[in-house]
Amino acid sequence: MIINIPENSDFSIHNIPFGIFSAEDRSPRVGVAVGEHILDLAAVAELDVFEFNTAVLEKDTLNDFISLGKEITNRVRKKIQYWLKDDHSPLAGKPELFVKQSEVQMHMPVSVGDYTDFYSSIEHATNVGKMFRDPENALLPNWKHIPVGYHGRASSIIVSGQPIHRPKGQTLPNNADAPVFGPTQRLDFELEIGFICGKDTQLGDSIPTEEAENYIFGLVLFNDWSARDIQKWEYVPLGPFLAKNFASSISPWVVTLEALKPFQVAGPTQEPKVLPYLAYEGDKNYDINLEVGITPDGSEETTVCHSNFKYMYWNMAQQLAHHTVNGCNIHVGDMMASGTISGKEDDSFGSMLELAWMGTKPVKMKDGSERKFINDGDTVTLRGFAQNGDIRVGFGEVSTKVLPAK
Amino acid sequence: MIINIPENSDFSIHNIPFGIFSAEDRSPRVGVAVGEHILDLAAVAELDVFEFNTAVLEKDTLNDFISLGKEITNRVRKKIQYWLKDDHSPLAGKPELFVKQSEVQMHMPVSVGDYTDFYSSIEHATNVGKMFRDPENALLPNWKHIPVGYHGRASSIIVSGQPIHRPKGQTLPNNADAPVFGPTQRLDFELEIGFICGKDTQLGDSIPTEEAENYIFGLVLFNDWSARDIQKWEYVPLGPFLAKNFASSISPWVVTLEALKPFQVAGPTQEPKVLPYLAYEGDKNYDINLEVGITPDGSEETTVCHSNFKYMYWNMAQQLAHHTVNGCNIHVGDMMASGTISGKEDDSFGSMLELAWMGTKPVKMKDGSERKFINDGDTVTLRGFAQNGDIRVGFGEVSTKVLPAK
Repeated sequence: MIINIPENSDFSIHNIPFGIFSAEDRSPRVGVAVGEHILDLAAVAELDVFEFNTAVLEKDTLNDFISLGKEITNRVRKKIQYWLKDDHSPLAGKPELFVKQSEVQMHMPVSVGDYTDFYSSIEHATNVGKMFRDPENALLPNWKHIPVGYHGRASSIIVSGQPIHRPKGQTLPNNADAPVFGPTQRLDFELEIGFICGKDTQLGDSIPTEEAENYIFGLVLFNDWSARDIQKWEYVPLGPFLAKNFASSISPWVVTLEALKPFQVAGPTQEPKVLPYLAYEGDKNYDINLEVGITPDGSEETTVCHSNFKYMYWNMAQQLAHHTVNGCNIHVGDMMASGTISGKEDDSFGSMLELAWMGTKPVKMKDGSERKFINDGDTVTLRGFAQNGDIRVGFGEVSTKVLPAK
Repeated sequence: MIINIPENSDFSIHNIPFGIFSAEDRSPRVGVAVGEHILDLAAVAELDVFEFNTAVLEKDTLNDFISLGKEITNRVRKKIQYWLKDDHSPLAGKPELFVKQSEVQMHMPVSVGDYTDFYSSIEHATNVGKMFRDPENALLPNWKHIPVGYHGRASSIIVSGQPIHRPKGQTLPNNADAPVFGPTQRLDFELEIGFICGKDTQLGDSIPTEEAENYIFGLVLFNDWSARDIQKWEYVPLGPFLAKNFASSISPWVVTLEALKPFQVAGPTQEPKVLPYLAYEGDKNYDINLEVGITPDGSEETTVCHSNFKYMYWNMAQQLAHHTVNGCNIHVGDMMASGTISGKEDDSFGSMLELAWMGTKPVKMKDGSERKFINDGDTVTLRGFAQNGDIRVGFGEVSTKVLPAK
């Protein structure tokens, strides 16, 4: 091996995720995470080993690189895997090609054109329905027919490490006649995975489920920050708006769909049967372990949730087929998030709303404090990895500190 | 005058709207509509009369031009007004600076980062509430407290002249147990006006109502195409999605907020009183006459709606203050649409849903046919202009033909 990769690293030779980084001596550019290092692809390009226009590797987003197409980007990934294993490869004896992750600044990996958030975990939708609507009829009539989704705000998607301020807004206190204004009292995370589109369509085109994977470049961890009290007051009839668009946080490394192939598993049985345009063949779910930790200011982290991406009722191929069945066009860099990923167990729920069940079951922290929702000073960290015997492919983390309202 | 401007032209000397055009001998670039002509600003720049980096005038969107800031863009507008009136100006005797509008191709004026649609007409919200919810309590409890809005799809905003295909999707027929798939049976327009953001904010910043106008570059006509049967089935609980994101059509000329100043009028009284962050001073509504025409294939146009932008309950300053009160950031080029602009009279409703009252009052066309919604082959045209004595400032039109489902 050209460079040491610690055992159990998320960024194993099997992964090779892409991201945008900068360092003291390097402007923002494309890199690949390898163990605790980053391989600087703009520097590799100077060795004249790539047969595409390598200007795309010097950009401050991955969009142009992704636009080269999977044939090229997959070949780059394969080449890097091969070179890392070959002591006589072009990368050998060139330590300047590698930078320590601890010494760089990570940036948003893509410029997001449009962002869509789905609602595809049946456990999450059921939990929310029980709490806010009818416990006997928790799922709405359309839920098992439609991968329900809505448009979110692209401008406020930020990368791991950037803190957020507690948002302010309108809420209607219990038994009040009129709303009040102030910082949200119910700030929440949502554990999600987002996929990044890898290919454009034209307005009027639809993507069949069997072609959907050609349009997915890769995945990131996605924290869909939510203000539950603002959401409750504003969301009827047109959906969540200010309760969501103050920030969404993502992990900086885009794990390619190809790196996740070994972890494909069958999804849940869909009953009633879906309409033909949503039917699919093969295993389209992914076995990706997920967890969420909360770190109170100056204290240690408590893991509050263990979940798994394989629980999703609707898979990404169905989401993309549905999104485009009316001819809606997509662009490289568009982000589509899963919706909160909850499992069946109480500790697998992907939000504080569910974990503390609307504040009725506070969650204990290691420092003795309790949480119904997220406090000022808390840092929320999402992590994810897939493991299959010795093969591990991970996402790293998305970690965000909550500062008091401005 | 350097060039003849027909009486009653939307593009009078008082207007000077900006857009992007191309012609046989000219790549896409910034122009200004003047009467029946376009003043080619990229060509004007070659006369060395501007004191900013004129590369922005050779771009295929207005974003970089708008980003120069209002101090510069307003000065450009004033200069052009002055030059057009002055027979000895730099534009005199240079016919190559002008192109006939009939000989150009118009393009999307801006690259839209994020698009938000509001729901700010009380007449429209009341009509929809009567039809779909409770006629006795048509307005939802939050409506008079919040300028309700939701995120739309930016990628499918298209410019006047580009046809659309009737979208397909899921609908639940009356009395059916399960949804069916096919072309929408209830294709509708929505008469709206959209404003284009002219200045960035940072995540965490809020825009007070009194500063909102500094963040609005200009306005366009906006047709928020809607599939009512798809909307009805999908919109609970997260809002409209595929019923809207197949296309929205806009007029190509961006009329600056400054050109519309002479048409400011008082808005309706807001009772109950709004929260302090939504309070405003001065006249923030705009008296802009609006109309919608439907032209069946091969037939003549029937005007089906006369409305006015002054009817809006919530004004643009309130919309922008609300949108950013939680710290949501905006970018130059972001689009914010008003929501359907309906008046009190039956013929002032801004959608077929309301004009034909859910299909119960079909609308007569001049050719003898009737419309409950929009048919294949129909062309829908929105027009708008403001007039104050001799001063006329218009938007031109946004015109879109509906083709059969693909």
